[in-house]
Amino acid sequence: MDDMKKQFEFLLELDKEKFIKRHTYRSDGESFENDAEHAWHMAVMAIVLSQYSNEKLDMLKVLTMILFHDVVEIDAGDTYAYDEEAGKTQAQREAAAAEKLYGLLPAWQGKGLKCLFEEFEACKTPEARFARALDNIQPLMLNAATDGRSWAENGVDVSKVLKRNEKTGLGSEALWKYAYENFIEPNVRKGHLTDNEGLMYNKE
Amino acid sequence: MDDMKKQFEFLLELDKEKFIKRHTYRSDGESFENDAEHAWHMAVMAIVLSQYSNEKLDMLKVLTMILFHDVVEIDAGDTYAYDEEAGKTQAQREAAAAEKLYGLLPAWQGKGLKCLFEEFEACKTPEARFARALDNIQPLMLNAATDGRSWAENGVDVSKVLKRNEKTGLGSEALWKYAYENFIEPNVRKGHLTDNEGLMYNKE
Repeated sequence: MDDMKKQFEFLLELDKEKFIKRHTYRSDGESFENDAEHAWHMAVMAIVLSQYSNEKLDMLKVLTMILFHDVVEIDAGDTYAYDEEAGKTQAQREAAAAEKLYGLLPAWQGKGLKCLFEEFEACKTPEARFARALDNIQPLMLNAATDGRSWAENGVDVSKVLKRNEKTGLGSEALWKYAYENFIEPNVRKGHLTDNEGLMYNKE
Repeated sequence: MDDMKKQFEFLLELDKEKFIKRHTYRSDGESFENDAEHAWHMAVMAIVLSQYSNEKLDMLKVLTMILFHDVVEIDAGDTYAYDEEAGKTQAQREAAAAEKLYGLLPAWQGKGLKCLFEEFEACKTPEARFARALDNIQPLMLNAATDGRSWAENGVDVSKVLKRNEKTGLGSEALWKYAYENFIEPNVRKGHLTDNEGLMYNKE
């Protein structure tokens, strides 16, 4: 019963993830999604798109990784993908947050979930590669659906998007190809993403 | 490639679940949670609390059921648990919505997810019983954390809460006991839930 009390305290603390705003617009193009919505959206994407993984997956592990991957932001805050300054301290802030947050759980359970978070971050297993591919593709899909508004507002250029996605194809070549052709390229063409790579020029 | 296009169209349509407001307050006691947040919260609860299921579970099935269980509300809208009038047409509205929504997917995949939704609704398998127990316990936890505000505002009495939870113990006796003692009873004692069952009287 003592375990259960700890578990419910942890689960109530997780409610705070609903208040962590991201820099991605929801499909209405007006409101920002939050971390809980993002994790849910990634999880349904993982189920629907699992057939395109480069490697065979333990789907329960993928989903567990995805559902918890951002809970550290309850303490560490959201770090915008294209904020280089904040990016420098991100890993350290998130490691401290993981220690604190998973410490609320019974030790046997907190340890397991913390290991899974570290595996996600390290991106060296098939499950982590696929989960991280979706962590990139989900906002690409929403950015494209909202005419690249978030990119344009933050003055993001295509180099940064490609750099951010340098490992996306390691999770799924097929999904990365689709995302590149359907979410990135049209926004370069329309000028919502600055073409500092000369992509459109090289095409001609 | 045609399959992938359909799948991404479906996944973008699912973004609308983030706009379906529920009647449950988030832990701040001021803003309502939405369906996407609720599904995410249930999913993390399922992982953390799986040890308390009455029966052995296929956890991948539980999570898939949970993550998709409310997507029909994109078309059918949220039906408040204690709105008897809307409850009468709920099943019919949601079945029509499932037909339409899962119809966006490649047939082989849409059919599987629709079957899983029907299994959740029928509540006759271990996975459905556990998922539905959490569908009830998640808002009980939040209602208790916000001093029963949603119950008080909607004039909900304890009979209705007990009726709503008549199958919760079928998923997990241990979780239902905890929820009753920690989420329901204290709110009856404090008068946030009308004690039309004489629970407090019978205790003396």
